[in-house]
Amino acid sequence: MPDKLIEPRTLKGFRDSLPALAMPRERLIDAARRVFRAYGFAPIDTPALEYTEILTGKGGDESDKQMYRFHDHGGRDVALRFDLTVPFARFAAQHIDDLGVPFKRYHIAPVWRGENTQHGRYREFIQCDFDTIGTGPGAADLETMLVVHDIMVALGFTRFSLQVNDRRILNGLLRQLGLDDRTAAVLRVLDKLRKAGPDKVEGELVEQVQVAPPTARELLASVQVQGDNDSILTDLEARLGQDPGASAGLALMRQLVEAFAAAGIPDERLHLDPAIARGLDYYTGPVCETFLADLPGIGSVCSGGRYDNLAGLYTRQHLPGVGASLGLDRLMAAMEELGLLGTARTPAEVLVVLFSAAATPHYVTAARRLRQAGLGVELYPEASAVGRQLKYADRKGFALAVIGGPAELARGVWQVKNLVSGHSAEVPDAELVDRVRAALTATADAAGAAGGARP
Amino acid sequence: MPDKLIEPRTLKGFRDSLPALAMPRERLIDAARRVFRAYGFAPIDTPALEYTEILTGKGGDESDKQMYRFHDHGGRDVALRFDLTVPFARFAAQHIDDLGVPFKRYHIAPVWRGENTQHGRYREFIQCDFDTIGTGPGAADLETMLVVHDIMVALGFTRFSLQVNDRRILNGLLRQLGLDDRTAAVLRVLDKLRKAGPDKVEGELVEQVQVAPPTARELLASVQVQGDNDSILTDLEARLGQDPGASAGLALMRQLVEAFAAAGIPDERLHLDPAIARGLDYYTGPVCETFLADLPGIGSVCSGGRYDNLAGLYTRQHLPGVGASLGLDRLMAAMEELGLLGTARTPAEVLVVLFSAAATPHYVTAARRLRQAGLGVELYPEASAVGRQLKYADRKGFALAVIGGPAELARGVWQVKNLVSGHSAEVPDAELVDRVRAALTATADAAGAAGGARP
Repeated sequence: MPDKLIEPRTLKGFRDSLPALAMPRERLIDAARRVFRAYGFAPIDTPALEYTEILTGKGGDESDKQMYRFHDHGGRDVALRFDLTVPFARFAAQHIDDLGVPFKRYHIAPVWRGENTQHGRYREFIQCDFDTIGTGPGAADLETMLVVHDIMVALGFTRFSLQVNDRRILNGLLRQLGLDDRTAAVLRVLDKLRKAGPDKVEGELVEQVQVAPPTARELLASVQVQGDNDSILTDLEARLGQDPGASAGLALMRQLVEAFAAAGIPDERLHLDPAIARGLDYYTGPVCETFLADLPGIGSVCSGGRYDNLAGLYTRQHLPGVGASLGLDRLMAAMEELGLLGTARTPAEVLVVLFSAAATPHYVTAARRLRQAGLGVELYPEASAVGRQLKYADRKGFALAVIGGPAELARGVWQVKNLVSGHSAEVPDAELVDRVRAALTATADAAGAAGGARP
Repeated sequence: MPDKLIEPRTLKGFRDSLPALAMPRERLIDAARRVFRAYGFAPIDTPALEYTEILTGKGGDESDKQMYRFHDHGGRDVALRFDLTVPFARFAAQHIDDLGVPFKRYHIAPVWRGENTQHGRYREFIQCDFDTIGTGPGAADLETMLVVHDIMVALGFTRFSLQVNDRRILNGLLRQLGLDDRTAAVLRVLDKLRKAGPDKVEGELVEQVQVAPPTARELLASVQVQGDNDSILTDLEARLGQDPGASAGLALMRQLVEAFAAAGIPDERLHLDPAIARGLDYYTGPVCETFLADLPGIGSVCSGGRYDNLAGLYTRQHLPGVGASLGLDRLMAAMEELGLLGTARTPAEVLVVLFSAAATPHYVTAARRLRQAGLGVELYPEASAVGRQLKYADRKGFALAVIGGPAELARGVWQVKNLVSGHSAEVPDAELVDRVRAALTATADAAGAAGGARP
């Protein structure tokens, strides 16, 4: 053993994921992946390290200060990826001939940014993106929104809404009002509507973008149409029916409303909001943000939209696409606040108590029988005092303990102890699997009835 | 669009994972995680970047030349992790008071090594480790071996064997032969037995470790006992019964044999091999290597064992443990060679053909009905020619296409086309889900009968 210990610590802005964090995050990611796969999205991965010129996208002239950038052993100028979009653009340019179009992928992986850590942000975090590329506006856009919806449901959310728009509608409105010479500037201001309110936005449009006050008011009125999706669409169709771009956007929004209705999705989960621009110049068609009715303050938990060309920096092949990004950290925070995470610190539900080291194979076999019935079972690894083993089970959040001391062994029975109620039942060895399963179902039902969650 | 494109390329020694690679790898990892969880192992994660002094473990004096090491924005000497063991040791030292013992974790994450790439090695690869720490030899060791066994079965392997030993048995043999003053040197040579053969090993023992020739021959005879596990154990018990360390190791191996037998695992999957040392000085108790009967040449696909103290560089707390590491790349290579990977490049089985953009919601709804029945379904995103859509389906490896042109739509029917046989059946809309499910089952059965794999 060394005289002097090395202090065990993580870098500033980085953190370990203990099971209490890693378990629910893994469940969340599993749920998202199940939905992605059900829609035919395939996983991909790209290297964490790339040539810096790939990541900056401009030959390295304007390196991003947040990038972890260095020279590798071969003297190459390299950096850790700071998002999954740029690597996907590079990936698509490099492999699209092999992959073919349309191409649907998801990518769930860590990214690194040497950001200021004051706002509770971490310098390493996981992004979760999915995209369909190589196809224009249409079915892929509708399904992108349905994927977002289905993931929210899979995570256990019920009260949420997708706020959708089509940038072509907004562009049509701007054209109609003669503002299409400063689209980007107008949209940047308009994007603040939700947070800053109409008065502030009107002021900024007038002062910063030189929009005439009546025009600013008319723009604000037309993006703040009240009513259900159908009446908003009808209103906008009347206003913009002569504009080909806007008409195409409105037709797609009509199809989206229709598809959500046909799927039996409650009306309140889809809301057409003509004010949504999603700031970036990047988006060119449908856009989407997702808000939780119970926690609107945390912002959009899943956002995305259609872009015209993914990989123009790396290839002359035109690759339009549509996709969205799940805000894993926000979703985790929301699930925690809404009690959707559970508190267990073990993925197993059952602890088998170990009485004597000599009889270890006996307990190993009992644990194995339970596992083969699909249950999660941990065998305590040493013959400590039963009280200590049960304390361990409590602390970790096991639901049941299976106890078989020498007396039980001799009689061919087990004690099945409910760790929440403290109630014990004696069960014959032959019935062990069935009785444990029944007891777990009862525990889960009780937790469900009490509003608890043990997904 | 820029005048000059940036060449899309990855760094030397790095690679993208396209769906053909990422899909089966994700399935492999999912299977391993299901087994880990069933045994009560919980996921953790640690940062990709650590202080260099943590990773070198010696205050940075002897930096590893393979490490990606640099100074971050704050001037810190940092590096990308090169394995998951060192970060786990740091993690355990830092959090064990919060986590408590025993602690069972798995960790599946990329690591980085600036290695020579001549041998087909990559500089970024995924490691998959699981460990139980804070407990001595016993049930945890038996379950570690059972986890390895169950993962192999979950991946579809049937002909494989765990070659196990307990280092305490070997140490007892060395003591008996008066070689315990050069244990490490002897074991390093003995570890070559499988590859180099007994003559070469005997020669090296004599020449390099100065073992007397008769002693070398006796050592080789005693580690090469023939027979089944029971007779090998009986032989070793007779030889080493008076050695307390070796007796404890033999008793644990007896329990392991008993636990495998009680689990109904075929005898040939567990083989006690007293010659296995697993080179490293690190191991102190049971050790394990896993070989495929059909591909012995690729080496051990899963190895591990018991160590006496995980985190001595970072804490004075004694943390014994046992664990193993899955060789994902070797397993993938083996599964590919044995036809266990399948060839599909989509996670979905069914392609719904899109006939007209105007009827998009109709097709979206059909796809959704199939998904709600648990099927993986992709909707082709645009109304291209049907032939083009079916070509896409073939290329990606979909099993079925669901086709509904205007005539079918009008009559309320669909064509369900088997993309392997080419056979089509007309099914009423109301029966779509049941008929597609039945057709998929038939396809899977046919593939299974033909030796194909579509997990």
